[in-house]
This record gives sequence, C-alpha cells and structure tokens, in this order.
Amino acid sequence: MSTEKKVTLAMGAGGKQTAELIDRVFAQRFASSLLTADDAAVLDAPRGKMAMSTDGFIVSPSFFAGGNIGKLSICGTVNDLACMGARPLYLTCAFVIEEGYPLDKLEQIADSMAATAAEVGVTLVAGDTKVAGHGQVDGVFITTTGVGEIPEGVAPAGDKAMPGDAIIVTGDVGRHGCTILLERDNFGIEADVTSDCAPLWKSVEAMLSATHDVHVIRDATRGGVGTVLYEIAGQSGVGVELDAAEVPVDPAVGGVCRMLGLEPLYLACEGRLVVIAPQEVAPSIVEALHSCPYSQGGKVIGRVVADRPGWVVLNTEVGTQTLLPQPTGELLPRIC
Amino acid sequence: MSTEKKVTLAMGAGGKQTAELIDRVFAQRFASSLLTADDAAVLDAPRGKMAMSTDGFIVSPSFFAGGNIGKLSICGTVNDLACMGARPLYLTCAFVIEEGYPLDKLEQIADSMAATAAEVGVTLVAGDTKVAGHGQVDGVFITTTGVGEIPEGVAPAGDKAMPGDAIIVTGDVGRHGCTILLERDNFGIEADVTSDCAPLWKSVEAMLSATHDVHVIRDATRGGVGTVLYEIAGQSGVGVELDAAEVPVDPAVGGVCRMLGLEPLYLACEGRLVVIAPQEVAPSIVEALHSCPYSQGGKVIGRVVADRPGWVVLNTEVGTQTLLPQPTGELLPRIC
Repeated sequence: MSTEKKVTLAMGAGGKQTAELIDRVFAQRFASSLLTADDAAVLDAPRGKMAMSTDGFIVSPSFFAGGNIGKLSICGTVNDLACMGARPLYLTCAFVIEEGYPLDKLEQIADSMAATAAEVGVTLVAGDTKVAGHGQVDGVFITTTGVGEIPEGVAPAGDKAMPGDAIIVTGDVGRHGCTILLERDNFGIEADVTSDCAPLWKSVEAMLSATHDVHVIRDATRGGVGTVLYEIAGQSGVGVELDAAEVPVDPAVGGVCRMLGLEPLYLACEGRLVVIAPQEVAPSIVEALHSCPYSQGGKVIGRVVADRPGWVVLNTEVGTQTLLPQPTGELLPRIC
Repeated sequence: MSTEKKVTLAMGAGGKQTAELIDRVFAQRFASSLLTADDAAVLDAPRGKMAMSTDGFIVSPSFFAGGNIGKLSICGTVNDLACMGARPLYLTCAFVIEEGYPLDKLEQIADSMAATAAEVGVTLVAGDTKVAGHGQVDGVFITTTGVGEIPEGVAPAGDKAMPGDAIIVTGDVGRHGCTILLERDNFGIEADVTSDCAPLWKSVEAMLSATHDVHVIRDATRGGVGTVLYEIAGQSGVGVELDAAEVPVDPAVGGVCRMLGLEPLYLACEGRLVVIAPQEVAPSIVEALHSCPYSQGGKVIGRVVADRPGWVVLNTEVGTQTLLPQPTGELLPRIC
C-alpha cells in the first residue's frame, strides 16, 4: 500500500531517488510546458510593470478545517500579488520536507496546490525539494514566490490612504486564526469554524473592472485586519475609524473570541482583503466583490480620517470611541 | 551587548517586533528603491524572455570555510539563472528562523547576502520572515527566488548536448561538499579545504560575449558534476566521455576523498558550472572563463559521444575505460 511510504533522506540527495520523488508527487500534478528539468524556467516576461512576492509557510498542523499548507501556500502568494492589482502569472514553490513524512499526505498537499493554481489560472514554473533530517524541520515547509502582471494605471499602495476614503473588508474576519487555534490547542471548545483560506485574484479583477480608483489593497494575514490597518495608518500618516458593529465576524468565531478574550480583528485571515478607496466608488467596489464567490460578504466597515494619524479608533456599539490596542508582538502561536 | 540578543517568537508574529527585526537585520542592508513595505514589489518587467528559479537552503552548519548560508542562498539562485544564460535582475528571500537564534549571526548572514547580491548587480526586491519554535526548525532556512533577463538568441538547455561537443568545467570539483563534510563530521582529518561557493553570472556573461553557441550550462550543486553529467546524458540521449586525468581536483580535496573512499565528481560544488558547447568554440569559452575570478581554473574535461547514450564513461589514466557509477541516492549528508 502506497499509504505506508514515507519520505527518506535519500529522496533529498539530488540523485535518482530525488527524481523519483519529484516524478511521483509533483511532476504530473504540476505538469505544464513551462516546467522543465532545467535550472530555471524560461518564460515570456509580463508587459509593462510586474509584481513579485515571496512567502514562507510553516503552519502547524499542516491540515486544518478548510484547507492545508499546500492550498495556503498558493493563496498566500496569489493574494500578495493581487494586493498590487497584479494578475498572477507564474509561481515557484520550494519544499523542505521532514524525513519520515508520509508520501500520501505530500500528494494531498500537491493536489491542493495544483487545484488552487488552476482555479486562479497561475502556472507553477519551477520548484525545489529538500529533505531535512528528523527533528531538523517539523513536517513540511513551503515557500512560494510569484510574478504577476500589473494592468496599466493600477498602483495601489499602503501609503495612499486619504482622509475621506472608505474602508472595505471582503468578508468576515479572523476565521483562519481561530481555526488554527482550535486545531492546535485543546480548550475543550466545540466550535464549527473553518479557515477562510482562498485565492482572491478574481475578486480583485472584478473590483478593477469596476474602477481603477483603488488606493490600498492589503491581505489581512499574520496579525489580522487590525495589524494591517495600523500599518496603513502609519504608512499613509492618517487615522482610521472603524464602526465596531459593522465588522463582520462569524458567530462561531465571535463565540470563541469571547470565551478566550481575543479580538477577532487581530486573528489572521487567509482569504480576506482590506480595500481602501474613495467613498464615491465604494458602492461599485462592494457590488463587484459580491459577484465573486470568496468576497460575497464584502462591506464597508469604516473610513480614513485626518484625526489621530497613526491610530485606529473603534466607534463602539454604545456610541463611545475607543482605541484599538496597537499590535505589539506574539498574539497567538504561529499560524501562517 | 548586541551579541546577547536572540530571535524570539514574538519577532515572527507579524506585529511591532517583526517590524523591529526586519528594520534591524534586513531593511538597511537590503535597502533599495524597489524594496517597499507593500505585499509585493513593483518592478519593470524584463524584455523578451525571462528566467525564473527557486532554491531552498538548509545547510548545516550555517557557517563554513568560504561562506555561510546567506552567501550560498544568493549564489545558488544567481547560478541557476546564469545556467539559462539569464542576467539576474531581481531576487526574493524568505527566512525561517529558529527561536533563540543569535541576532548577530543573522546580521552576518544578511551582510553576506547583501555583499554577494551587490557583486552580481542583482536587487533584493521582496522578503519574508517567519520564526519557528525551538526544535521546529534547525537554525535558519533561506529560500531565494530569482528572475533574470535572457539575451536574444541565448537558449542553453539540458537536452541540447550533441555528439562531438566539448565538456568544460569552470574550476576544480567537489570543494563545497568536502568542506561541509569536514565541518559536520569529525573524521580526525586535518585538511585545508574551502567551499567554492561563488556567484557565476559574470563568468557566463563573459562566455556569452565570446559566443552564443553554448548548448548546455548547468551548475553542479547537489550530487556534483557526476550527477549533472548523468542528467544531461539522459535528457540529451547521448553518451559522455571524461578524461579522468583532466578533471581538476584540489589536492586537499583529493586527499580527503582517497581517505574516505569518495568520488570527487559526486561531491557538491556551489561555484562550478558544467558547460557543453561545440569543440570549435571551446577554446574561446575557456579563454573567456579565465578572464573572470571564479572560473580561472576552467578547462575541457571530456566530450559528448553517440556511444552508450545515457552513460558517463571515464577514460582512466592507465588507458582503460570504466563506467562512472550512476548516482543513486544519499551520497552524503544534506549539504546544500
């Protein structure tokens, strides 16, 4: 039975067994005319401006409700490119695999990667596989790097938020962080929470079809929406005002957060964007988001203000204002 | 004293301390107008064809005679691009750092990366930093990904070797593998061996100035020159004939190999190329190689033949022929 087979150090030595590992797990799933046995892929360059981004994934556990590290590794880099308005074209992936890791789990991870890449229309063009000794690495690490093509006239950036802009999120917040938390630690909590892990290029493409007048697009991964908003407030030298009642939180996620004393705005998302754009185009952006499967919960949650530059203020449900505490450090175990 | 400071999990959580780690270790060393705080770098696309490659580095120990994992991670990807004849333009780097890793060692690694990138003229355009718990990763892992521009009319590939071609190496073989072996294991051997780790774009650039008629360029990393030649023999469906007496081996490396019963052709290099080109252009290629610091030992070591396709044959110093054993698996501990 193939389920018994495990990754061995010999499979990482660069010889015949490495070739067999690559053939069995990766070659067929990632097959394309661009993926060759040479040292680098040879590709048509994007036209005009291109975006390039890299991200390392060390999530533990590597399988979780709503996805696995493979899906996550494609979504993460696709979403980073999408945040620059770039259509993802090419991805590379580098694996570090612990000796003894089950081959069938590795195949499931590769399956998820191939399926997610196909959904987005991005091509895996080069890879690298290393095997590390028992205890030298925990399970599987994946680093993906992507290149995308930026349409003419599109240039969102973290320093472009302006007073008066609307702040939009593309769906409910904190699901990925909450999912991983529950998978890792046994709090005795029964909650039906699934990661929001999803590739968001189609949502960005729909937005850009509606308007190019988008100031900032950011994906709220490590540190969640709260950290992203503090970063933007700092980069743009503006204040941010959120209407607490408008921030969408899944009831199960909200329940877990109340029990554990966590702020959902600081839990990681892996399928949510923060979009900042002029108030007048916000309705058409939200409408465009609603046309895409992963952003049907998109909505305005606040606005950019000139007051209190560098700070994020919450308008509470009882009519008071409070500062969202600044992100300072280790909020949760590593979750991305 | 800064030497006492260590990497903490909080530095990987994506909040303020992550920003401080990045500021302290990476931001200044890697500073360029292309490296921003956004999710992806925005770059001018290469013209025409581009090369893209990724490589993960898990070398242990992370400091060795002749380099460290930082220098290695830049050279590895620069050399993979150079093997397609591509001028390296952009690099990304993703770090996974073990909790407790000394900050000053991380700074030395970043120094080496910055210096090597500057030497090649390639720009670090995006990065990612993750911190893993004690025991979840051993020291530091680095994954680099590069994009390069391929000059018109240049298209070396592993399946282009033709009977009659000359086989050239750019210097003595097996130094990196031998260095790591001696650093890792105490065989009681005293040997003055230094890694050949070096960026080879300038050597390739010089070759391409002499001629575009280069059939194959490969860097002999994991598995060494022997593995690369077997791969090319398989991809091109040709035989390879080496003159054993012509294969350059540093005397110290040769001594260690004789004591331990190792074949230098199967020890990893990190600064050596295998170049295959028509016999008539071989002298001008060797001359071009000699004009560059890292390829002054470049020489012809054999030829491509029609006989015995898929095999590498050694013409021994006593006039007999022997098959170079095929690479089959774990030849040495992980060394790249």
